[in-house]
Amino acid sequence: MRTDFDIKNPKKKFKKTERVPPKGYDNANDFFEDMYMDENMIWMGQNTNHLHDDTIANAMIDAIRMKTYCRYPAPEGFSELKKLVLKDLGFEDEEVLLTSGATESLYLCMQALLTPEDNVILSDPGYFIIGDFANRFANEVRYVPIYDEKYGYKLTPDLLRENMDENTRMAILIDPLNPLGSSYTEDELKEFAEIAKENDIYLLHDVTYKDFAREHFLVENYAPGQTLTIYSFSKIFGMAGLRIGGVVSSKPIIDAIKNAVVNDLGVNIISQYGAIAGLKSKDVWFEDMRQTCFENQRLIKEMVDTVDGIFLPVYPSDANMMVIDIYDTGINPKDLSNYLIQKGLFTREGEYTSDEFGERYLRVSFSIPTEEIKIFCEEFPKAIEALRK
Amino acid sequence: MRTDFDIKNPKKKFKKTERVPPKGYDNANDFFEDMYMDENMIWMGQNTNHLHDDTIANAMIDAIRMKTYCRYPAPEGFSELKKLVLKDLGFEDEEVLLTSGATESLYLCMQALLTPEDNVILSDPGYFIIGDFANRFANEVRYVPIYDEKYGYKLTPDLLRENMDENTRMAILIDPLNPLGSSYTEDELKEFAEIAKENDIYLLHDVTYKDFAREHFLVENYAPGQTLTIYSFSKIFGMAGLRIGGVVSSKPIIDAIKNAVVNDLGVNIISQYGAIAGLKSKDVWFEDMRQTCFENQRLIKEMVDTVDGIFLPVYPSDANMMVIDIYDTGINPKDLSNYLIQKGLFTREGEYTSDEFGERYLRVSFSIPTEEIKIFCEEFPKAIEALRK
Repeated sequence: MRTDFDIKNPKKKFKKTERVPPKGYDNANDFFEDMYMDENMIWMGQNTNHLHDDTIANAMIDAIRMKTYCRYPAPEGFSELKKLVLKDLGFEDEEVLLTSGATESLYLCMQALLTPEDNVILSDPGYFIIGDFANRFANEVRYVPIYDEKYGYKLTPDLLRENMDENTRMAILIDPLNPLGSSYTEDELKEFAEIAKENDIYLLHDVTYKDFAREHFLVENYAPGQTLTIYSFSKIFGMAGLRIGGVVSSKPIIDAIKNAVVNDLGVNIISQYGAIAGLKSKDVWFEDMRQTCFENQRLIKEMVDTVDGIFLPVYPSDANMMVIDIYDTGINPKDLSNYLIQKGLFTREGEYTSDEFGERYLRVSFSIPTEEIKIFCEEFPKAIEALRK
Repeated sequence: MRTDFDIKNPKKKFKKTERVPPKGYDNANDFFEDMYMDENMIWMGQNTNHLHDDTIANAMIDAIRMKTYCRYPAPEGFSELKKLVLKDLGFEDEEVLLTSGATESLYLCMQALLTPEDNVILSDPGYFIIGDFANRFANEVRYVPIYDEKYGYKLTPDLLRENMDENTRMAILIDPLNPLGSSYTEDELKEFAEIAKENDIYLLHDVTYKDFAREHFLVENYAPGQTLTIYSFSKIFGMAGLRIGGVVSSKPIIDAIKNAVVNDLGVNIISQYGAIAGLKSKDVWFEDMRQTCFENQRLIKEMVDTVDGIFLPVYPSDANMMVIDIYDTGINPKDLSNYLIQKGLFTREGEYTSDEFGERYLRVSFSIPTEEIKIFCEEFPKAIEALRK
């Protein structure tokens, strides 16, 4: 009998960003379920979009009534939806793989492309699930500190050059950046493309928040054949709970990713109908939604400017979220987040998106009705005063 | 610059069961999409259940109307749903992880538990996606031929003993078996449990089709701590296109699997509401649905008995599908399947579930209205006569 493993207590472990649940909760699942179930909670903690009318909902209800959901979907997604995604990105020759959320696409990219000798560059702060996935297949993820005005609170081309070596196979550009809302100019993306081409590096361009930006560019256009564009329906289209997203790239890369596929039986059909309705109606709601978001962040900025010891590192944010730096108040962001939950406001403490700077800030998303933002702007200064050391 | 890889044509490959699309199709996605879109196609090709009333659909429509799908679900699934799954299995101390379809659970089990020195035992015929996933993380999958009356068309405890060695870490029991509908007695499962305990082997017990069986037992009850029970909503509950399933096991194993999770942002919320409604209403529809399935397979058996050169290896089937062996007619199952599609009947050729015996049989599922089965029973003998060599 083999003695090198304990079958009842498997020890295989992956590096995983820990999420400590708030006080009073044994585990994160219970906490998120309580948040979800609370109808009156003001939802500023997940960068989700709560500004949609019923267009997407009605398309999904019609699809349920057809009752074709007892059939399996085509494994790679509806052709119509894939064409609409390409059109939304302005791409022609690229291919689309739809997955259960963009999260799954991120995972598949790592599984398909990284090998145990590779390293990967990711910013800190950043969206850490990406790094966790990369860690399962690469040798190392290098978290580059970018929480500094001199970098514009983002991973710059210079920072990439300084932190890469001959084993760097992928650089991750979250653009706009979760949590800060910083984003890239066209010139910066061209420079990233040059670095990538010179050094045989994949650029993973996560454009989940692209439509909230004042302007946005796609690095696929400058480094085709080695760029992976990660596409999400969760945020722009308000479909977080429906788990649909995808990855767009050149054919050889998408073929490699298909080879590594997990959900071989395709993506939720109802979500696909919702996504089609969302893309087809985008012209109608897109500009109003953006304007509401810009107005909402303007209100938050006004409020922040009246409170001592706090500031917005990035304003305006090009995402539907921003970071409020509270370091000089001496308040722990986790305490502030817990306090705000008691007031019916769900936000996220910094440790969720940064190991190194998590104690400095709270992340708030603002793609919610303006009247809810006004409540936040009333409660937030009171919370700071109540907790200030 | 590194020269050991071509970044534009990544070469990392996983063993994957190829699906050759039928004549006239460039790829499997287009074929499945055409099938899906054809409203009049009689659906006997995917083991899906088409016998449900509107209970599940109505629960999902209500959930969409709440519009809480713009929030993320709790990452491991709703507590209520997890409790209902445990109750359905008659378990108390086990834990549940819900995933985007049982497919994802299968993948996660392999990722979390298998190491590169392990081998895995799977029957041929069998559900090959499981083997493909095991191949990504283990050294080898050993496909044991079981298409033989003397084995009862299933992986027996004796066959497991003959094919395992000191590096065998997992035996896969699909029960009832896709495609044959063979299933295990309680005594057989107890014997598997003994083998597993003596040899430190995981038993992966895929019970996707359990409720179609005349009787069904759970090996978790005999080998707790080393059994993984794979749970699906796609078949019994008619929810294939909604992508929800899960894995049930002891806490240390579920903890190991959570550590390997892909969809860190949870499972489609609407599907979870549908699954809750399905489990809560199961007592109402369960027995009628089974009786329809048994009547349907009786009609197929009657028809098969009138046609020369074909037979049912397993009858009655304990699943909602069966295998029709057509080897003695000289007809290639793929030709038969293509022919039947022209007649509006979607079935699956044997190569989809067997490398070694795929040329012998067609798989047909029968959890569809009886009037559609009657059409199949009229058309099938004509197809055999038209194609017979």
